[in-house]
Amino acid sequence: MAERSVVIVGGGLVGSLAACYFAKRGWKVDLYEKRQDVRQPEHSCLVEHRSINLAISERGFSALRRLDPLLEARVRELAIPMHGRMIHALDGKQTSQAYDVFGKHINSVGRNALIRVLLDAADSYSWVTLHFRHELVDVDFDARRATLRNAETGHQLDSSADLIVGADGAYSRVRQRMMTKVMMNYSQTYIEHGYCEFSMAPINDAFAMDPNHLHIWPRGSFMLIALPNPDKSFTCTLFMPWRQFDQIKTGDEAVGFFRANFPDALDLMGEKSMCAEYARNPKGSLVYVKCTPHTYKNCAVILGDAAHAMVPFYGQGMNCGFEDVEKLDEIMLATLQASGSESTETTQLTDEQLLSALDEYSATRAADTDAIVDLALDNYVEMRSSVISYSYLLRKQLEGILHRLFPTFVIPLYTMVSFTSIPYAAVIRQWNRQTLWLHRSIYAATATAVLGAGLISAQLLGLRMPALNQVARIFSHNY
Amino acid sequence: MAERSVVIVGGGLVGSLAACYFAKRGWKVDLYEKRQDVRQPEHSCLVEHRSINLAISERGFSALRRLDPLLEARVRELAIPMHGRMIHALDGKQTSQAYDVFGKHINSVGRNALIRVLLDAADSYSWVTLHFRHELVDVDFDARRATLRNAETGHQLDSSADLIVGADGAYSRVRQRMMTKVMMNYSQTYIEHGYCEFSMAPINDAFAMDPNHLHIWPRGSFMLIALPNPDKSFTCTLFMPWRQFDQIKTGDEAVGFFRANFPDALDLMGEKSMCAEYARNPKGSLVYVKCTPHTYKNCAVILGDAAHAMVPFYGQGMNCGFEDVEKLDEIMLATLQASGSESTETTQLTDEQLLSALDEYSATRAADTDAIVDLALDNYVEMRSSVISYSYLLRKQLEGILHRLFPTFVIPLYTMVSFTSIPYAAVIRQWNRQTLWLHRSIYAATATAVLGAGLISAQLLGLRMPALNQVARIFSHNY
Repeated sequence: MAERSVVIVGGGLVGSLAACYFAKRGWKVDLYEKRQDVRQPEHSCLVEHRSINLAISERGFSALRRLDPLLEARVRELAIPMHGRMIHALDGKQTSQAYDVFGKHINSVGRNALIRVLLDAADSYSWVTLHFRHELVDVDFDARRATLRNAETGHQLDSSADLIVGADGAYSRVRQRMMTKVMMNYSQTYIEHGYCEFSMAPINDAFAMDPNHLHIWPRGSFMLIALPNPDKSFTCTLFMPWRQFDQIKTGDEAVGFFRANFPDALDLMGEKSMCAEYARNPKGSLVYVKCTPHTYKNCAVILGDAAHAMVPFYGQGMNCGFEDVEKLDEIMLATLQASGSESTETTQLTDEQLLSALDEYSATRAADTDAIVDLALDNYVEMRSSVISYSYLLRKQLEGILHRLFPTFVIPLYTMVSFTSIPYAAVIRQWNRQTLWLHRSIYAATATAVLGAGLISAQLLGLRMPALNQVARIFSHNY
Repeated sequence: MAERSVVIVGGGLVGSLAACYFAKRGWKVDLYEKRQDVRQPEHSCLVEHRSINLAISERGFSALRRLDPLLEARVRELAIPMHGRMIHALDGKQTSQAYDVFGKHINSVGRNALIRVLLDAADSYSWVTLHFRHELVDVDFDARRATLRNAETGHQLDSSADLIVGADGAYSRVRQRMMTKVMMNYSQTYIEHGYCEFSMAPINDAFAMDPNHLHIWPRGSFMLIALPNPDKSFTCTLFMPWRQFDQIKTGDEAVGFFRANFPDALDLMGEKSMCAEYARNPKGSLVYVKCTPHTYKNCAVILGDAAHAMVPFYGQGMNCGFEDVEKLDEIMLATLQASGSESTETTQLTDEQLLSALDEYSATRAADTDAIVDLALDNYVEMRSSVISYSYLLRKQLEGILHRLFPTFVIPLYTMVSFTSIPYAAVIRQWNRQTLWLHRSIYAATATAVLGAGLISAQLLGLRMPALNQVARIFSHNY
């Protein structure tokens, strides 16, 4: 045991899952996290300035299941199912839109609750050491050595291992150092919108709204959303162009804005609470990152947001990061077993095999992570605007029917992303094929209808044209 | 005098020009360069691993002229005019392609010779201090303080100023630090080609080839180029896909490759010299960088490669960097004079005016620098492949004629980029308009010809079709 060792930089969701996976495969693990242990009672989630809840779906569960089915079960217990979107109109009318015709759902789960479960799981291996309050200073990849600073003592230490894993988030320092070693194509792009979080407390010890939905107030160029928490509160997030945030400076202006756009949400939050939070809570920026490669020789790999930060609108950031860990494990194991070994201890990989596994991971994974980064960006338009358009709803209806009839031939995009493990790049290809096929069908149907109508009466045809245009428009959505 | 001070990080071409400009406007300047002073006799240009010569054209001269017409004259004396491309066919046949119908030319100039002139000019101001062997450690932008390390003593020092200028190249540390302060959209992309330099010594104390051309051996997916040096040598650069470099390992393989593709160049270089250089000289990567904004509040600005590294195929990297300095100076001066001042000392700008000037620079400059980054990338295809295509040459001929007839209405792309100061983004717009106009004309002419020919004889038309296709193809090139 422990013939090989790994240093993991970052003890967030992806880093702690990676620690479990490597430990399971026999690796000695040292995990370094710059924040304090979220399991300590004095920990305050406020210091993180990050959304406190997120949506876990099939890809996330799949990675947990492969590691340990009991772990998946434990996370499911923590999660609140969200069966669909609840669309809030300006007049307060609520409309439910199911996520899936077969009843599949996504799940709201607390970030820290999930990290706690994963850290406990990592801690259960005696060959895993968790180091909190340790910040990365530098990495010497070829020497396979990370230098870290203990934030409490100021002391610097070197940590050596066979492999260095960067799971240190969108502003990854491991990635930054890796860029000095490899010719990395890299882009980071900020969208022109920011976000601000608000809480909606329980009312009479009950959820203020239906807890089994992801609530959306779509308002065209901006939106409010809300996800349920186990304490029966909701966390609401306002996404809006920066210039609009800049225009709302006083509490009165904030109330006026909410009163005009989200009157029902404002009543449930309370004016005073909303105002206080608007003034106090940080306004966060939204950035997406693409890069390739994700690895350096057989020395290092970056996972999760470090390799592919995305905007949060598909709820796939963590799910994709978990899938990174699962894919890497699959490839490492397959590489070992291709060499004739029946072991599941990937510590037995030779240096060359480890290189081959990391090369394969990097060569195959970037196409998928780039794809979900793009899908997440596109989904912002869907959430804040398309969900209330007539043509969007008609296509959704029609696709739902076709998906019921031909469950593998026509699969709605949201279903492929959230309820399957079809590689993201393949999701986009299948979606493009479906769209083409649907376009052709609708054009054929339209042509037939026009021809039929024309045969009956040229005058009647003139009357029907607007309706046909409407049908054709249904399939003009490109996402 | 010296009411305001600037710290310039990077004493290359752009940094030393910026030092002169700020000094001329009355700023106290501290320039920090990590390498040693190229004017010291012990300096070896080899340590830089960078191309030793480059092409200066109108934008570069314009920036020198604005600073001091005598400086422009001094640089022109150092430069060797290149009136056109000399295309080397496989059989050794050479064909000259003039850069401009009115005889305008670009100029080969040694990098270090140019830096020496600029450093001397900067040194002539008593309020400029040049610090060599000083490497940037960190920047505290809001405190307007740079921390540097003296490479000789290891001593760290802080340098404070009103403004911090990052002219520290494609891998700019100032930019890297700025990214932690502003929401910077940033991308860096490596092309799949690398380069290697070779020297071609004089023969009997004379240039081995015509010195007044930029020599090109275009070979489709790769190419060799050569620029003349004042010592009558040429510096040759091989640009080629990395996988091809990887296949050439031994001296024999290198000779075989050159013999098959550049026999005339090989004979002029000498097999032994070429082999030694192929083995010894580094293989460089080619990266381009785009980012926005280029400034942080009124605290900092990045100039030159730090803001827009580009591939070298348009010979515009330095010219664009010089233009950055000129534009920044223009905007700062215009801001001062808009406030009613008749002074040319931009030290008199208030903090608010400095902010407004830097904001304007950042808002207007990025579109132009992005444009030339794209043009430089496109020009690689032109240099290594299009220059020998029949349709490219025909369009070039036709455009030359139109440019003579209508010098302001039709301007060849190369002329706009190299021989004018039309903003790069406007160059692309004008080029697109010209292309559209030419397309329309040729289609109209073709249609007329087809119609006329059809009226005479359907049979004759059949014979003429291939020729018409050929004409139509001339205008299928995009730039």
